[in-house]
Amino acid sequence: MNKRIAVLPGDGIGPEVTAIAVQVLKKIGEVFDHQFTFEEGLVGAIAIDETGNPFPDETLQLCQSADAILFGAIGHPKYDNDPTAPVRPEQGLLAMRKALGLYANIRPVNTFKALADASPLKREIVEGVDFVVFRELTGGSYFGKKGRSDDRLSAYDTCTYTHDEIYRITQLAFEAAAKRRKKVTLVDKANVMETSRLWREVVQKYAAEHPEIELELMFVDNAAMALIQNPRRFDVILTENMFGDILTDEASVITGSLGMLPSASVGSQVALYEPIHGSYPQAAGQNIANPMAAVLSAATLLETSFNLMAEGKTIRHAVEEALNLGYVTKDINPDKFMSTTEVGQKICDFI
Amino acid sequence: MNKRIAVLPGDGIGPEVTAIAVQVLKKIGEVFDHQFTFEEGLVGAIAIDETGNPFPDETLQLCQSADAILFGAIGHPKYDNDPTAPVRPEQGLLAMRKALGLYANIRPVNTFKALADASPLKREIVEGVDFVVFRELTGGSYFGKKGRSDDRLSAYDTCTYTHDEIYRITQLAFEAAAKRRKKVTLVDKANVMETSRLWREVVQKYAAEHPEIELELMFVDNAAMALIQNPRRFDVILTENMFGDILTDEASVITGSLGMLPSASVGSQVALYEPIHGSYPQAAGQNIANPMAAVLSAATLLETSFNLMAEGKTIRHAVEEALNLGYVTKDINPDKFMSTTEVGQKICDFI
Ligand SMILES: CC(C)[C@H](C(=O)O)[C@@H](O)C(=O)O
Ligand SMILES: CC(C)[C@H](C(=O)O)[C@@H](O)C(=O)O
Repeated sequence: MNKRIAVLPGDGIGPEVTAIAVQVLKKIGEVFDHQFTFEEGLVGAIAIDETGNPFPDETLQLCQSADAILFGAIGHPKYDNDPTAPVRPEQGLLAMRKALGLYANIRPVNTFKALADASPLKREIVEGVDFVVFRELTGGSYFGKKGRSDDRLSAYDTCTYTHDEIYRITQLAFEAAAKRRKKVTLVDKANVMETSRLWREVVQKYAAEHPEIELELMFVDNAAMALIQNPRRFDVILTENMFGDILTDEASVITGSLGMLPSASVGSQVALYEPIHGSYPQAAGQNIANPMAAVLSAATLLETSFNLMAEGKTIRHAVEEALNLGYVTKDINPDKFMSTTEVGQKICDFI
Repeated sequence: MNKRIAVLPGDGIGPEVTAIAVQVLKKIGEVFDHQFTFEEGLVGAIAIDETGNPFPDETLQLCQSADAILFGAIGHPKYDNDPTAPVRPEQGLLAMRKALGLYANIRPVNTFKALADASPLKREIVEGVDFVVFRELTGGSYFGKKGRSDDRLSAYDTCTYTHDEIYRITQLAFEAAAKRRKKVTLVDKANVMETSRLWREVVQKYAAEHPEIELELMFVDNAAMALIQNPRRFDVILTENMFGDILTDEASVITGSLGMLPSASVGSQVALYEPIHGSYPQAAGQNIANPMAAVLSAATLLETSFNLMAEGKTIRHAVEEALNLGYVTKDINPDKFMSTTEVGQKICDFI
């Protein structure tokens, strides 16, 4: 197979973990005899530094012409406490999502046997947790009209959704549920938000036409509780952009495997794969970041964009083997750990 | 002291736990020689059933003429999956908040020694947790303009905030922090929302004038993680209505003491006190609900609205004594428990 992969390392630990993911993909290419070509693009704070634009046109073109995108992370502390700066890294992220039409962010959350005690939650609560969140990614308050009054003393944001925006991600979530435990939990705030009521209408109608999937309705405040009290109850969670932002981050820490979780953002064209841990600037440049989430993102890329199931599985096994043998970074075992590059090498060796 | 207390039992377990709180207040009145008079009003599903209005005018007048309000809970399953029904219990709740100007919902979250192992989180993470959330309660998407397009296929909600709405609750949060560990964490999404940027401006300006209080800025997705990973880091959390809805519910389960947590909603006039557990319809009418959160809400009422500190303390000690001796409801100890009324009697006996 011949495939072009756009690589956007981004900021913080992004470049370090993306480098390992690329190394793993190269090894897969050798072993399975595929031609993967990698082309790097700028995004985030580093793109601002070098071009003044957090998502330059060249990066957009690179992404549009690629067969898949491997993404690191964006964000730099120098912008963190200044969300009013005229140009900010996350504008690049939002522009990228919108320009590439990446309307569904898909985040599986599961536990790893070797990490059974890494969770802040009790073992009996997180054991066997296995769900996936479908977060809408190009609508809601993120892209609605927003502004200030003339005296700047009042502000507004608009959350908007259309039937079609809801329908297309509903379809994806139900398709995923059909291959899993056949349950979709729609999370909204339909007792307050008109957009949530539209979500319920569209999803309930879709569910009525797909009776093989159970639809559960849950308010977002209840979901924030249920994720902690009984995360095993969830199979597929479907939700809008802002609720998804909050719940996926909450979900990512309940299993204690934040450094292990990949994600995929899909749309009508090319898809993008990234670890969910973010740029984690405190660890940048120290060769201590956990590369496993980036490597598992690469596995998801092979499976989802290229339908290379055996190759994906090979990567997942290699990661598990490294985990089980204790070849892990500091976040997983502060007493006995390896560097980012050492863990990456071990994973490659197991392929 | 002569005081009129409006009692709004509401729905589900509301009436059962409110009855105990009233019983406790009567006992306090006897022991400390106060004249408390109690007048009941309708709110919620029961108010719809009896009057067609979830927050009837008589209830509003009762509340406005009272010195404090003791509230149970609202919500009934028959409305749960129909957020488009023309009249719903939560409309009464929102109307009540708006009409009474209850702009700040204050929820302390703390652990109880006797419940050290009740949390879904590990003991070492929740031990000593002690923070309080200030949630803005009469602004944001809850009360902004909302609607549909003519074809009903697209919907919108508007989140709005003004300088003054932010300022007044900021003042309360900073005053609370001054009496505590002197730290305020502002939770927002200033990298996406214009309203959040206004919150940051107002709160940062206020903080600059109050250098004795440390101000921390945190994005809501990070806060959803930090509440689980390291809840002890928080002292006072300050946030807007919707984020507050999600985070207070998340916060209420991390300590495992949901049935123990009171809350206060304050404004320019009369204040309202309620347990945070909600109407919990599954338990209604069975005499199994935990009355302690309602009783602690009564203690907060005495302390906050009437400045009766010794009386409040007496109630808190009585509750702790009951807890320590194992006089608890089923939610706390499923193996050895008492009924709602038995626990209420024990608390009264300890006063
Ligand atoms: C950086 C920020 C704008 C972004 C978001 O809110 O979507 C991030 O939190 C994420 O989840 O990818
Ligand atoms: C019932 C609902 C409208 C309400 C809210 O969202 O404010 C509830 O969740 C609460 O927190 O009191």
